[in-house]
Amino acid sequence: MNKIFFLIVLIGVPSSAAGSILGWDPTWMFGVYSITILGLASYIGRSTDSLSVIAGPRIGGLLSVTFGNAVELTISIFALMAGYLHIVLASLTGAVISNLLLVAGTSFFIGGIKYKRQQFNIYDARHNIGLLMFSVVVSFVFPFIFSGKISDDEILWLSGGIAIIMLLLYFSALFFRLVTHRGVYAEKEDSGQEQETPEWGKWKSIIILAASAITVALVSDQLVDTFEDVAESFGWSEVFIGIIIVAIIGNFAENIAAIYMALQNKINVSVEIAVGSTLQIAMFVTPILVLLSFMFATPMPLVFPTEALISMLLSVFLATFIINDGDTNWFEGLTLMCAYIIIAIGFYFI
Amino acid sequence: MNKIFFLIVLIGVPSSAAGSILGWDPTWMFGVYSITILGLASYIGRSTDSLSVIAGPRIGGLLSVTFGNAVELTISIFALMAGYLHIVLASLTGAVISNLLLVAGTSFFIGGIKYKRQQFNIYDARHNIGLLMFSVVVSFVFPFIFSGKISDDEILWLSGGIAIIMLLLYFSALFFRLVTHRGVYAEKEDSGQEQETPEWGKWKSIIILAASAITVALVSDQLVDTFEDVAESFGWSEVFIGIIIVAIIGNFAENIAAIYMALQNKINVSVEIAVGSTLQIAMFVTPILVLLSFMFATPMPLVFPTEALISMLLSVFLATFIINDGDTNWFEGLTLMCAYIIIAIGFYFI
Amino acid sequence: MNKIFFLIVLIGVPSSAAGSILGWDPTWMFGVYSITILGLASYIGRSTDSLSVIAGPRIGGLLSVTFGNAVELTISIFALMAGYLHIVLASLTGAVISNLLLVAGTSFFIGGIKYKRQQFNIYDARHNIGLLMFSVVVSFVFPFIFSGKISDDEILWLSGGIAIIMLLLYFSALFFRLVTHRGVYAEKEDSGQEQETPEWGKWKSIIILAASAITVALVSDQLVDTFEDVAESFGWSEVFIGIIIVAIIGNFAENIAAIYMALQNKINVSVEIAVGSTLQIAMFVTPILVLLSFMFATPMPLVFPTEALISMLLSVFLATFIINDGDTNWFEGLTLMCAYIIIAIGFYFI
Repeated sequence: MNKIFFLIVLIGVPSSAAGSILGWDPTWMFGVYSITILGLASYIGRSTDSLSVIAGPRIGGLLSVTFGNAVELTISIFALMAGYLHIVLASLTGAVISNLLLVAGTSFFIGGIKYKRQQFNIYDARHNIGLLMFSVVVSFVFPFIFSGKISDDEILWLSGGIAIIMLLLYFSALFFRLVTHRGVYAEKEDSGQEQETPEWGKWKSIIILAASAITVALVSDQLVDTFEDVAESFGWSEVFIGIIIVAIIGNFAENIAAIYMALQNKINVSVEIAVGSTLQIAMFVTPILVLLSFMFATPMPLVFPTEALISMLLSVFLATFIINDGDTNWFEGLTLMCAYIIIAIGFYFI
Repeated sequence: MNKIFFLIVLIGVPSSAAGSILGWDPTWMFGVYSITILGLASYIGRSTDSLSVIAGPRIGGLLSVTFGNAVELTISIFALMAGYLHIVLASLTGAVISNLLLVAGTSFFIGGIKYKRQQFNIYDARHNIGLLMFSVVVSFVFPFIFSGKISDDEILWLSGGIAIIMLLLYFSALFFRLVTHRGVYAEKEDSGQEQETPEWGKWKSIIILAASAITVALVSDQLVDTFEDVAESFGWSEVFIGIIIVAIIGNFAENIAAIYMALQNKINVSVEIAVGSTLQIAMFVTPILVLLSFMFATPMPLVFPTEALISMLLSVFLATFIINDGDTNWFEGLTLMCAYIIIAIGFYFI
Repeated sequence: MNKIFFLIVLIGVPSSAAGSILGWDPTWMFGVYSITILGLASYIGRSTDSLSVIAGPRIGGLLSVTFGNAVELTISIFALMAGYLHIVLASLTGAVISNLLLVAGTSFFIGGIKYKRQQFNIYDARHNIGLLMFSVVVSFVFPFIFSGKISDDEILWLSGGIAIIMLLLYFSALFFRLVTHRGVYAEKEDSGQEQETPEWGKWKSIIILAASAITVALVSDQLVDTFEDVAESFGWSEVFIGIIIVAIIGNFAENIAAIYMALQNKINVSVEIAVGSTLQIAMFVTPILVLLSFMFATPMPLVFPTEALISMLLSVFLATFIINDGDTNWFEGLTLMCAYIIIAIGFYFI
């Protein structure tokens, strides 16, 4: 199996490079890019796995999430500079929804088919969900409600203030988990499980992870470009592409990693990837984009379109409820997946 | 006591039949029908009780719920064929609200007066509540939000899609509870309590349950008809009748059964009846009605009126919070009942 | 330290009295009043502490909350008689938000810096939060939703009905906690901790508490008056003053008491002060004001402005999530504080 992925990467990466430089047919390249990403994703999964054995599920999850979201941040900055605010907001919305519903849903579902009942550290999950409620339920709803009552200039000041508070809280959260409360909420049996040997060593894993993540980023970027051509022939709207398609592709690697972990009964890491990634998007990428946008021609207020905001709210409420019991099974995964499909159908028609 | 109920049924059922055929005075018949239902409800309660001893609280609750909702489904289909979409939506809303707040509230309250603290299987309850959040918080809110932005035709497609997903998830939930995870989340002490002997045997219980439920359905139907006459003289609005009065009558049998179980400290069955019944309405009856409506003259989109949707949302949030701790007392019951009264007053004025 | 507070009160109270009678400069008096309140608050804290040792955390918290809210009720009644409905609604909103986010936030944060992890009785907290959800999520949202659909007269009837139900439920809650379920949900280790000796005896504590609370009330009242002058020179809006500034000053004593308790690892009392105080405002002060207003020239419907209602809803959701795990730390406190700052910025711009 690993040999097949090796072959895919060996052939896929050069073909992707060649295709994008020589301008081959987008529909054909769409397939090449997708399969290449699939191959690269397996390397991301395996290196994350090794790192999580070496450094524990928390750091492993954090690393995987960081490499995953670097892509989103980079693409969004370019879109922001070009003034495509609605595309940036759509891609942020899509990342939140697809991480919470699709990544968590598929990994709970597939993991749950193999294992009857998978349990994870509820304290870590609740810590993250608390932040998620803060960011989506408070920070995103607030400017939306006030946007109708105060001037555009004041909305920008409010958005900037909220962005700074979000970043402050995000870094406090890291400080909390890695410094002041490291291990305070750890569960006893955690220590016992970590005895297995990692596939790769520490540095080999980091290099493979970094290389795969960067390559996935580059290929994803190309994929997104070709995608618009493909989408046009399918008759999809820009909102649908931004919120659903871009997010699925953009989160593909994380999704595979989360499923891979679930299949090895490390649902802790899957939850960390799904919720942690949403959190990085909401509490780190979003406020940085808001603050950066103030240096560009068109500053971006923290005001999402109604449907986007409601979709994020519903996703957070559903995921909070599902995750809050510290235990997953195939049915909980299916519920999240169904919610994602409903949201996708909604945005398809809009 | 049982003899009194026997007499009520013995006299009540023929009088109800005679009255409805001969067209006796509606105000008088209103009393006859109500007392007959009360008598029949005691048989539903006793047969459900026997079945829950034989088959466990889950199956017992499920059976009672199914017989209860068959009535609602039948009445709604006739209303749908006649094109009374707003009446169907009102009666669905009423069923959700009255099950969650009134049926659960009264049984927690009355059970809680007898017992200080009643505990139930939190996993079963959470499983159901998760579905409830899915159906009300996601499936009902979504078409509502999108209905302003997309065409009427697209709303119907969206409604149809959501209906199919809801049915799929509903049957998956049954598969989960009865096949793949049967007993996985069972609590230890459950097995010990089931040693008591049922009042009636398995088939006797089923036959009495079916006969009583069908008779209640027929009598309820007559009751609803007479009700409009009665209501007119009281000056109530159509919305109030649909959401409050019809729901109270329609859920009367389930309500009595739930209270009866609470009084025997089988609060598990009460929760199953209240939440399970809401769930059947939201996840089974509602999508079936949406899909069936596509074959009739006026298709029904899954778009509830604002007040109805908000009332359902508030009911789900409150009930989720109350039920989520796995433990009930009279005060939690009273809280739910008070919420129901507030909603009833609201719809009285609308 | 206690000697300093003694000196502050000894000098501050007469100066406050002199200044308010002789009409000294408001900006200068603002400082005098604030420092005097600080000194008096330490006496409230110490007497509450003694009482909580004598009578247990529940009664101690209840006493402190009652003396704190007597001020708010008195001020609001005067505002109501003068017809300033929007000021009353703003101050109620402010009390809810600042208790839930600021009082709880600062005490969790400061207590959490000293102690890694503070635990409290989750049953008491949930009991209170259930009521909070009832009052804010059901009782406040309902008239808001219906206000657009029914006549002004009907809104008053609906408000009155809801107010009566809220009071009934509030007194039932007291009956539940103090009579029928006293100690039912108590945790075992509670009894062991209560062995310490109180600083003051029962009656001395009650007299000092009452005297300090009444003096704080009088000084706060003067402070609020001078405040408008001070605010004018700062260019703040009336809404901002009502919701943020008045609430911070009005809750100052409770806030200090809550922090004081947190620093002594009696986080139970802090939660009781924060949530219990919110509850008294929402379930007791608010309905009484609604009912009293019917005797005045301008009756007050239970309809909050959109931003105020949303702010309360978000505060309740966030606080519920944070408190629901029965355990606090500095990060949870910081999250609540950040939410408060965001809301304050929002109202600053409105």
